Amino acid sequence: MPRVAEQWVRTILAALYRESTTTRAEILKLTGLNPASASHAFQQLVKAGVVLKIGELHSKAGRRRELLRLNPEAGYLVAVDLEASPIRFALTNLVGDIRFRWEEEVDWRKNLDVSRIVNGVQVVCRSLHPDQFRRVLAVGISRPGVRDAQGNVTAVNLGWHRFSLEQQLRETLELPFFIENTARSFVLAEHQHGRAQHSEHCIYVEIGKGVGAGVVLDGSFFERKVEFGHLTVDLNASDPCRCGKIGCIEAITSGPNLVRQYLEQVGAVDTGSVSVAEVLERARRADPVALSVVDRVASTLALGISHLIILFDPELIILGGYVPAAEDLFMPRIRKQLQRHIKDWMFRDCELTVSGLGADIGLKGAASRAFYSVVADSTLLAKLCRLNAVAGRAGATKRTSKRIVAVP
Amino acid sequence: MPRVAEQWVRTILAALYRESTTTRAEILKLTGLNPASASHAFQQLVKAGVVLKIGELHSKAGRRRELLRLNPEAGYLVAVDLEASPIRFALTNLVGDIRFRWEEEVDWRKNLDVSRIVNGVQVVCRSLHPDQFRRVLAVGISRPGVRDAQGNVTAVNLGWHRFSLEQQLRETLELPFFIENTARSFVLAEHQHGRAQHSEHCIYVEIGKGVGAGVVLDGSFFERKVEFGHLTVDLNASDPCRCGKIGCIEAITSGPNLVRQYLEQVGAVDTGSVSVAEVLERARRADPVALSVVDRVASTLALGISHLIILFDPELIILGGYVPAAEDLFMPRIRKQLQRHIKDWMFRDCELTVSGLGADIGLKGAASRAFYSVVADSTLLAKLCRLNAVAGRAGATKRTSKRIVAVP
Repeated sequence: MPRVAEQWVRTILAALYRESTTTRAEILKLTGLNPASASHAFQQLVKAGVVLKIGELHSKAGRRRELLRLNPEAGYLVAVDLEASPIRFALTNLVGDIRFRWEEEVDWRKNLDVSRIVNGVQVVCRSLHPDQFRRVLAVGISRPGVRDAQGNVTAVNLGWHRFSLEQQLRETLELPFFIENTARSFVLAEHQHGRAQHSEHCIYVEIGKGVGAGVVLDGSFFERKVEFGHLTVDLNASDPCRCGKIGCIEAITSGPNLVRQYLEQVGAVDTGSVSVAEVLERARRADPVALSVVDRVASTLALGISHLIILFDPELIILGGYVPAAEDLFMPRIRKQLQRHIKDWMFRDCELTVSGLGADIGLKGAASRAFYSVVADSTLLAKLCRLNAVAGRAGATKRTSKRIVAVP
Repeated sequence: MPRVAEQWVRTILAALYRESTTTRAEILKLTGLNPASASHAFQQLVKAGVVLKIGELHSKAGRRRELLRLNPEAGYLVAVDLEASPIRFALTNLVGDIRFRWEEEVDWRKNLDVSRIVNGVQVVCRSLHPDQFRRVLAVGISRPGVRDAQGNVTAVNLGWHRFSLEQQLRETLELPFFIENTARSFVLAEHQHGRAQHSEHCIYVEIGKGVGAGVVLDGSFFERKVEFGHLTVDLNASDPCRCGKIGCIEAITSGPNLVRQYLEQVGAVDTGSVSVAEVLERARRADPVALSVVDRVASTLALGISHLIILFDPELIILGGYVPAAEDLFMPRIRKQLQRHIKDWMFRDCELTVSGLGADIGLKGAASRAFYSVVADSTLLAKLCRLNAVAGRAGATKRTSKRIVAVP
């Protein structure tokens, strides 16, 4: 494919991914592509079976406009969520519908070995008929932790300290793979499937085992490293963070730290005996210790969220992790505290809401990362187009045969 | 000018503005422009007198490459710095060299009237010979304060609360004008003339009458609203901020607040009697109260700077305002405190330095804003090209005359 044409194909695929069912005119409007130049790209994609004509829109003026959508089964992706426990795997179609799931229990006392990831990917791929395996385009991986400049990952929950994840996967995984950190995966999932579908400036904040934020500005992924969970927010705190600092947002608000504070205050010794949900349930039953922990967590989150608003000016912030299931406890407290940190006249209204994607958010985000990376990669994009163009190719072969016959 | 060609012209002008003297090949490399397509744009700009051929580079292979630069006198800009006191005006050439200065004393007890701005601009323009006045392309204005969604400005130092600056200037100023907030102007100045000239990811932090930050990422101005000075950093503080909040970075670290804290601690009543420089001088002489204020200001700045590093991952942070003149007091303290908030393994090294641009930074930034806005505006860009194409036009007229003569 010539480079310029490939760029048009990419733009059209990305627009169709976001819009699901739409018309050619709508895509031209959204992308600003030139109709004449884009026409060949549309034809190519339809001929390759990657874009389907699924019906017609009739206008009063009698004009017919074809309805287009991505062929959801044009290719498969493997999604891996390393933030979840047990870690989760899925086979998804091109648009992220989950076709098969797999979980791998991991022993949190040991380092997660790359072989466990490779094994999960293989199990998921085996859910396809062997003939269909070639239709798997890539693996998208959503991972917790922090990546250093050398590409090594430190993720305390997985027992990784400067762990050579990328290098080891390159050596053992047969499929192309693309890794994204948790919060960035999650904002991709929200932007594609969740509450940020119509927002061009949104931030997703994960408050789970870890705490992080993924940022979309002007409709694009903010590519800089954002380590929201490690903002120091309480200078007087004694809460140790797994990053080595004291008083980080994560050290006060992550699930394990919420439980830790509760247990410390009630004087309990065994930190494994209470879950986040139980502490929150006790708060609902007006347990004063549980309520004081919820107050502190909500205040800390509000302060952190105010920093995001003041520095990024988003129109939407989505909270995930354990917060959606405890919206009743957290949202009124966070909203009240936010008024302390944000003056009305400084910023237009920023909507604050909770995620509705549930436990699949990591898999959905990993699949989104894989989709965008496949489209951005010339080799994988060519594979996607080739995979589905069997009919076209058969035709081509026939014509070739004819020509051979015709030659005397 | 056709739209596509205009875009090439813009890209070339922006590259020449950044590079000062360079070659066509270098610009093509920097911008990724196609040589064939850009060739006409180069010719146009040289013919229009906006780009000058100022010499040749000879390579060993015997190839000659022309050295190009912007014609500094191709047009003039007026720069206005409303953060300075007295407020400052300058006439600059196209590349920001200051040709004439003017100051307007203002009474800080009254609201600054737009007529004072208009008057300053007129005085500056009168420094040009009347024939040259038409060469003034635009006014760039650097302003303190916060702009709301309706375009009104709140700037306590200027006595403005939701002040309709833009509307009033539109009604009274005869020249096109472009307004930028202080910190954003300042980062433009640093990126063009200062220590950020070779940095693609840099943040300028102003610590003066107000506190703010301007951000450049991937070589481009970060266009979102960044209200760094109004991050809440001390929940236990009683320092009131002029924004209406308590414990903002600005409420603790701005010049007036540094003095306020000193005077409060020594029990002085008259808040007008000591300058920032005097408090800092007392700290140098080991006055324990002055030192404790410096410690608190440095710690607060360090915490704020750590937020910028953690959320934007810049490679360079430049501190301005009163800090450059007190580098000896602040930088060791800020650096030490930063180690508390940033762990080595999280981020690559971010260089921290002080501005070297001095008092002209606001004027330089305003001129930069005006330059970029002129280049982005089709009408003003056409004016810039027309202004200097007198010789070309004269030639064109001659040819036309000849043709008329030739017609029987």
